[in-house]
Amino acid sequence: MKLPGPEEFEASTAHENVPPAELHSGFGPNASPDGPSDIDSRELVISEDPLLFIQLNELLGWPQALEWRETGRWVLFEEKLEVGAGRWSVPHVPTLTLPSLQNLRSLLAEGLVLLDCPAQSLLELVEQVIRVEVLSPEVRGQLQALLLQRPQHHIQPSATRPCWGSTHLQNTSHDEDVPLKGQNPLKQRLPPGAEAAAVLAGQLGFLAQPLGAFVRLQNPVVLGPLTEVALPSRFFCLLLGPPTTGRCSYHEMGRAAAVLLSDPQFQGSVRRASDLQDFLAALDAFLEEMTVLPPGRWDPTVRIPPPKCPPFQHKRYLELPSHPREVKGRAGRRHPRGPPELQRSGRLFGGLVQDVHRKAPWYLSDFLDALHPQCFSAVLYIYLATVTNAITFGGLLGDATEGAQGVLESFLGTAVAGAAFCLMAGQPLTILSSTGPVLVFERLLFSFSRDYSLDYLPFRLWVGIWVATFCLVLVATEASLLVRYFTRFTEEGFCALISLIFIYDALGKMLTLARAYPIQRPGSPAYGCFCQYPSPRAYSAIHIPMPGSLSIQNLGLVNVSLLPLPECVQQGGHPRGPGCHTIPDVALFSFLLFLSSFLSAMALKRVKSSHLFPSMVRKVFSDFSSVLAILLGCGLDAYLGLATPKLLVPKEFKPTLPGRGWLVSPFGTNPWWLSVAAALPALLLSILVFMDQQITAVILNREEYRLRKGAGFHLDLFCVAMLMLLTSALGLPWYVSATVISLAHMDSLRRESRACVPGEAPHFLGIREQRLTGLAVFTLTGVSVFLAPVLKFIPMPVLYGIFLYMGVAALNSIQFMKRVQLMLMPAKHQPDLLLLRHVPLGRVHLFTAIQLACLGLLWIIKSTPAAIIFPLMLLGLVGVRKALEWVFSPQELLWLDELIPEEEGSTPEKELEPEHLFSGSDSEDSELKYQPKTPEINISVN
Amino acid sequence: MKLPGPEEFEASTAHENVPPAELHSGFGPNASPDGPSDIDSRELVISEDPLLFIQLNELLGWPQALEWRETGRWVLFEEKLEVGAGRWSVPHVPTLTLPSLQNLRSLLAEGLVLLDCPAQSLLELVEQVIRVEVLSPEVRGQLQALLLQRPQHHIQPSATRPCWGSTHLQNTSHDEDVPLKGQNPLKQRLPPGAEAAAVLAGQLGFLAQPLGAFVRLQNPVVLGPLTEVALPSRFFCLLLGPPTTGRCSYHEMGRAAAVLLSDPQFQGSVRRASDLQDFLAALDAFLEEMTVLPPGRWDPTVRIPPPKCPPFQHKRYLELPSHPREVKGRAGRRHPRGPPELQRSGRLFGGLVQDVHRKAPWYLSDFLDALHPQCFSAVLYIYLATVTNAITFGGLLGDATEGAQGVLESFLGTAVAGAAFCLMAGQPLTILSSTGPVLVFERLLFSFSRDYSLDYLPFRLWVGIWVATFCLVLVATEASLLVRYFTRFTEEGFCALISLIFIYDALGKMLTLARAYPIQRPGSPAYGCFCQYPSPRAYSAIHIPMPGSLSIQNLGLVNVSLLPLPECVQQGGHPRGPGCHTIPDVALFSFLLFLSSFLSAMALKRVKSSHLFPSMVRKVFSDFSSVLAILLGCGLDAYLGLATPKLLVPKEFKPTLPGRGWLVSPFGTNPWWLSVAAALPALLLSILVFMDQQITAVILNREEYRLRKGAGFHLDLFCVAMLMLLTSALGLPWYVSATVISLAHMDSLRRESRACVPGEAPHFLGIREQRLTGLAVFTLTGVSVFLAPVLKFIPMPVLYGIFLYMGVAALNSIQFMKRVQLMLMPAKHQPDLLLLRHVPLGRVHLFTAIQLACLGLLWIIKSTPAAIIFPLMLLGLVGVRKALEWVFSPQELLWLDELIPEEEGSTPEKELEPEHLFSGSDSEDSELKYQPKTPEINISVN
Repeated sequence: MKLPGPEEFEASTAHENVPPAELHSGFGPNASPDGPSDIDSRELVISEDPLLFIQLNELLGWPQALEWRETGRWVLFEEKLEVGAGRWSVPHVPTLTLPSLQNLRSLLAEGLVLLDCPAQSLLELVEQVIRVEVLSPEVRGQLQALLLQRPQHHIQPSATRPCWGSTHLQNTSHDEDVPLKGQNPLKQRLPPGAEAAAVLAGQLGFLAQPLGAFVRLQNPVVLGPLTEVALPSRFFCLLLGPPTTGRCSYHEMGRAAAVLLSDPQFQGSVRRASDLQDFLAALDAFLEEMTVLPPGRWDPTVRIPPPKCPPFQHKRYLELPSHPREVKGRAGRRHPRGPPELQRSGRLFGGLVQDVHRKAPWYLSDFLDALHPQCFSAVLYIYLATVTNAITFGGLLGDATEGAQGVLESFLGTAVAGAAFCLMAGQPLTILSSTGPVLVFERLLFSFSRDYSLDYLPFRLWVGIWVATFCLVLVATEASLLVRYFTRFTEEGFCALISLIFIYDALGKMLTLARAYPIQRPGSPAYGCFCQYPSPRAYSAIHIPMPGSLSIQNLGLVNVSLLPLPECVQQGGHPRGPGCHTIPDVALFSFLLFLSSFLSAMALKRVKSSHLFPSMVRKVFSDFSSVLAILLGCGLDAYLGLATPKLLVPKEFKPTLPGRGWLVSPFGTNPWWLSVAAALPALLLSILVFMDQQITAVILNREEYRLRKGAGFHLDLFCVAMLMLLTSALGLPWYVSATVISLAHMDSLRRESRACVPGEAPHFLGIREQRLTGLAVFTLTGVSVFLAPVLKFIPMPVLYGIFLYMGVAALNSIQFMKRVQLMLMPAKHQPDLLLLRHVPLGRVHLFTAIQLACLGLLWIIKSTPAAIIFPLMLLGLVGVRKALEWVFSPQELLWLDELIPEEEGSTPEKELEPEHLFSGSDSEDSELKYQPKTPEINISVN
Repeated sequence: MKLPGPEEFEASTAHENVPPAELHSGFGPNASPDGPSDIDSRELVISEDPLLFIQLNELLGWPQALEWRETGRWVLFEEKLEVGAGRWSVPHVPTLTLPSLQNLRSLLAEGLVLLDCPAQSLLELVEQVIRVEVLSPEVRGQLQALLLQRPQHHIQPSATRPCWGSTHLQNTSHDEDVPLKGQNPLKQRLPPGAEAAAVLAGQLGFLAQPLGAFVRLQNPVVLGPLTEVALPSRFFCLLLGPPTTGRCSYHEMGRAAAVLLSDPQFQGSVRRASDLQDFLAALDAFLEEMTVLPPGRWDPTVRIPPPKCPPFQHKRYLELPSHPREVKGRAGRRHPRGPPELQRSGRLFGGLVQDVHRKAPWYLSDFLDALHPQCFSAVLYIYLATVTNAITFGGLLGDATEGAQGVLESFLGTAVAGAAFCLMAGQPLTILSSTGPVLVFERLLFSFSRDYSLDYLPFRLWVGIWVATFCLVLVATEASLLVRYFTRFTEEGFCALISLIFIYDALGKMLTLARAYPIQRPGSPAYGCFCQYPSPRAYSAIHIPMPGSLSIQNLGLVNVSLLPLPECVQQGGHPRGPGCHTIPDVALFSFLLFLSSFLSAMALKRVKSSHLFPSMVRKVFSDFSSVLAILLGCGLDAYLGLATPKLLVPKEFKPTLPGRGWLVSPFGTNPWWLSVAAALPALLLSILVFMDQQITAVILNREEYRLRKGAGFHLDLFCVAMLMLLTSALGLPWYVSATVISLAHMDSLRRESRACVPGEAPHFLGIREQRLTGLAVFTLTGVSVFLAPVLKFIPMPVLYGIFLYMGVAALNSIQFMKRVQLMLMPAKHQPDLLLLRHVPLGRVHLFTAIQLACLGLLWIIKSTPAAIIFPLMLLGLVGVRKALEWVFSPQELLWLDELIPEEEGSTPEKELEPEHLFSGSDSEDSELKYQPKTPEINISVN
């Protein structure tokens, strides 16, 4: 349904260096249902070759004190020895000069190329190499002695954890995995099976003419101390000659040879070469495919940092004769008919059965995979977010239903429903919660039942029963397959709306707080404290509950500065006015706490991309950013000791509404026909639940998160329906998947590869998919009633700050926001997005403007009494997206959104032909077809 | 004394495209004393060629609908037409493939190369080109019609201000300078005299064999509608041929031809080529010097952004036979014996006379150059900083001298001394102010005179007279030449100390404020308000001035809650305790204001490097960041209306000490010999003034700021001495140059070139050197006494926030801080600084640690009674730096600091030889010798 994203290719090329054992570790059953696609397997064919460590030893000190010295090394990128500083340079993309490559070619073409040399040691190898007719026996002797001389290596002292040790795969401890003291740390960072290559270059006065030799060893052997890591060497290259004065030195030729060997394509060809012709053909192929930078606009001494994602070598690998149709039409699409979760079975409840079958084999691993410290941080973070959410929505619900539900119900329902969902659902990373749309609906339902004097909870029970029934019908008919029509347009509209609700609520809560703890301004009428005497006409005024809304006139008030408080009470009066109850400084301090927790959570999250401190420390700061921000806020609050509003956790276990038991009676005082009439609102609610649940599910199961255990759209909906029945019967709130918290949950469970080979960037590997973190979160939520003594120290403003952070983070994560920023950006400052290369700017802005308009409309509807049709409007988003096909061409929609799948059997390929007629520009074509969709800029030079 | 910084080379290459009229505009007398150095002139020789606009027209639509279409253009960098999006790509460094260059070479070698073609129109040119024997007459006719066909250009509609119009040079308005409607905006961005080149490429079915032609026109003519901008064309290149299937298309060959022409070296050679051999030699030279990226590690479709500073083409330009010694030894040093300001004249007051002679010719331009809106912002910003400084130091001085000086003296002295300095000094960008070190000294002097019951102001007058005398001696003996020994080590130590004092003072002031407006915590003993009855033993307690330090026990206090305030006063008591006077919320709100003004100033400053909004808007936000932050703070303060402490400006014009006139009597009650004894403290103070003044002067006159009007070290010191005499006589504070505010002043007057040619980054051009902004600042300071009604709305916490911002900005601008950060950074995350390539990390850290230790020692001495020897310690810094020569090698010091100049006549060159023996690695050598040393930045660039 979309072109493969950058991460996918990252993943496939990342596999290149991963030993087979690592590839499937931690993923439970090895037979993944959607195993490696054909592109993967093609990449893997090429990456069968072992990784090569290449070292350049240069001959220095001619003529007095000849010595070999390591001056460069290569695995993926080049590291140069900084002689002055005595350290390795940063890994960088190697740059060469053309003459060095040309000279290397001619030297080797005239020199010695030994393929499948049977030498078993350095001595044998050297003997083979110097057996050239041009050398006199005397020179041979000198040369042999020189080549056997021990080279000087620069080995960095720092100790590194082994990257490829097997200890974390099997728990048997092998002695050889413990890093030995003084061992080269690079060795532990190379995968098992890696081979070495040595390039020896330099000028040698006693040679009459240049000597070039390239050797491929039949069986790799450790060539004594030739390379700094004691790996078996496969290749050996010798480039010696009389002193030259030209610009193309042996140093540059040696570098060229090393860079050639570090090229996977060249290396593969040379491994398979059978004679000199093959060898030279490989070298020429390399020359043909080089990228050339003109001298006038590029400083050749600049070191280009390694690209963040490795080059996608479409020209080199994908131009294979196999699969020509697929490469041309819809390159690299993994699922030509959508993912297996969305295949129609055609049977009643067929999708549900498939979901169960798909998820069952992973069930055990869903618990074992949680054994990682990262999960601990995730539980803490999501627990705090869930509890805050439960309190917020509990308070709102209690307000909306006049106490029919309250904070205790919110806690209990969240814990029960969430834990049950985590145990049974198809996508256990989902966090159930009360959501804004459902809350709006419930508020409307309550107003309706109050207006018509209905018994609310029994009425609500019937609504719940109907919703569950409708949802079951949707499950039975595999209606969840409709999610295929939820494109990024729908997802982004919904996700932006939910994020905005988070941000709006956080700010709104803070303003409410400022009203509850007013800031006293000199001269404001509320300043001071008054004493109110009991009098007949002031009787009603006593019931005014909020000090903020107190009217002062005509209430028989006496300023306390004239009549002190104790005297006032003694005379039977009541102290009235904010001046009596106000605790100064609380409002401003709450704002300080709010801002500091928001800003510190943002800043701590970014610590990861800073360069200070070791990466472990940064990772801890980043992973625990929310928890640390909360602790910081609590510390600040405790230090000043002001009476800020704190987190309140219910202590008693009984329904909030006095006098009701836990089970809701089916009819109460309602007439019998109301149980039938409840089907009408239930229909609207069903649409809402379906949309709310499934859009979140689609977002969570996006391909870019690389979930390996598959989704379960039908199973998830089934669980939600069953839980809706349960919560309705117990009078608890209704729950569906919560987008923002679920995304935060997944984010806190990201797995990233450690950068092992120098210059390699860490890759996103996927999410720790398991059921335990969610279960722990909801168990903790359930027992939070008993944690009140600890939780009561958390100030609410801190939690609101975290709320704001979650909303902002979720909002920033969608492409929509990037496009909104584009609207404010002058064209020349816009980033070089592929999107902008292919779609006219006006069309991009039009698409963004339509999204903004939809979002505005949704927000307005949510805020007005028309909110009851809100579910239908969500469905309308899909319709708007469909209507956009009349406004935008399929190519534009392919870049801006994704294509809505055609009916099965039709051929949409013809619409994906390139939109222009450039016959000559093959790079243009390939860009459109093969390049990852949005690879924002990769290198930042300087 | 140091290798040339990156900006210098930027400047010299930036000149490349500047018309001669622009080069010297606005700099007053054209004969700059240190005119273009030899490197500049060499660059200018090469840049004599006009700028070339190159356009690639491709033949598309074969065979049905042939049309020429512009698909790429080049000036400095490549812009590609995004066909799908209908826009130009971002300018990028062009990348080519080797086969395209090789094919181009062979095609042209066999094709037609016409040098000095006399054609006067497109028709004549086409006739000349197709007069090739291989073409049949029929084909010639078809080809001629095709070549004369009008090509399709993509012209961006956006209107741009002309970059090169002459309107802002001379105020005569030419009609042709007004941008015409619908005219190509690119045309206005190209300098006058620019030429065009057209490359036509494509496949053409009726050709039997490829056709290549390259034409250099004798006289450039506008070739009809061939290029999108109607410039006279100098070059014309035609590459046509039968359809090919290979990877090297005519599109790629056309790009290769365009890139070749955009290379200044190739272009220069082809302009001078006399035959095909010269042409091919130029092409081969290009091939030789290309940078080559291996295919395996670099994605050829990535667009490399233009480098921020253009490549320093040492190999290409500096390997000229001229100046071999200089290139080898101390490449590109502008002043082999230091700048002209620091040449010893050998005569009494010779330096002073030289300074006057140097500055006098600029005097008129010092006023005319200020006519720019940027100066208005600078005046506002620096005025507010100066007033805040005057108030802060005035308050501190009044405290230190028990009222002998106060805020009014501070205002008056700042205004008088500052304005006089701006009118007379050698470096009018300097802002005079009370400084921390001088304040510390004055505090010590006052304690001394109080301890010995001396009449302070007369004593101080004599100290001032002596200091002025000593300073005159220093001026006469040209002692300011000693500043050559102030290396970066000294500057950084001093600058870091001053910045830390700023930060410390800002935070300290905020804490003082928090004590003055305490936050009330429940249960704290200071809570509440008490009524104190007059009683004999409480008599002394009444004099306790500060409510914060009030002891409550045994003072006959009655809680006001038991006895209301009016009653207390009525009974003759006094309300006592913070509860009576405290205004709640003020402390926390002050912190909010403090943080918000600091953070918003930081954020606004960074708006410039954001990509949102047009650059004009961003520039305004960035230039006015402090003013906007202050306004924001005032607005916030006015909105809440809390009684925060506001800026207090004196209203009456009379000395703070009651009963003294403006002139200090020479002796007062002091014995006569005290006027002689005053020479002893004056000696210490002279050292302090000399160090404080000259280090700041050295920092302000750093080469990287590109000041064009020269410095005046002797003249500045002379002015300071004269002003010291004046202020001593009037009993006003003493003034020397203030580093932080002066740097902020210069920063607010930065001149940057506008980026004209696509892809070109704006260059730092220098500072608006003039006397008017400073004069305006101090005039405003003087009349501030009458501005009290406006200034009283500025809350002090906002000003403290700006103080903090200035301190942090100054601290971040020094390289020292970057090296401190390096200490916290794991080696593999460290940036690829040239410093780190050449100096072992341990040595870098050792140097930084020594600097940190010196800084710590200075801070401790400043804070203890030993502060009197503080001036000597500053001198000690120079000694420490000298001693470091025993610890570090000259190479290391060259990278870490700069070398202290040897005695004149000695030859320090030998110490600058490269430290290693790599004979082959010429790139290594050249890096060490030619590359800019520390691309760090001094005033916050970006």
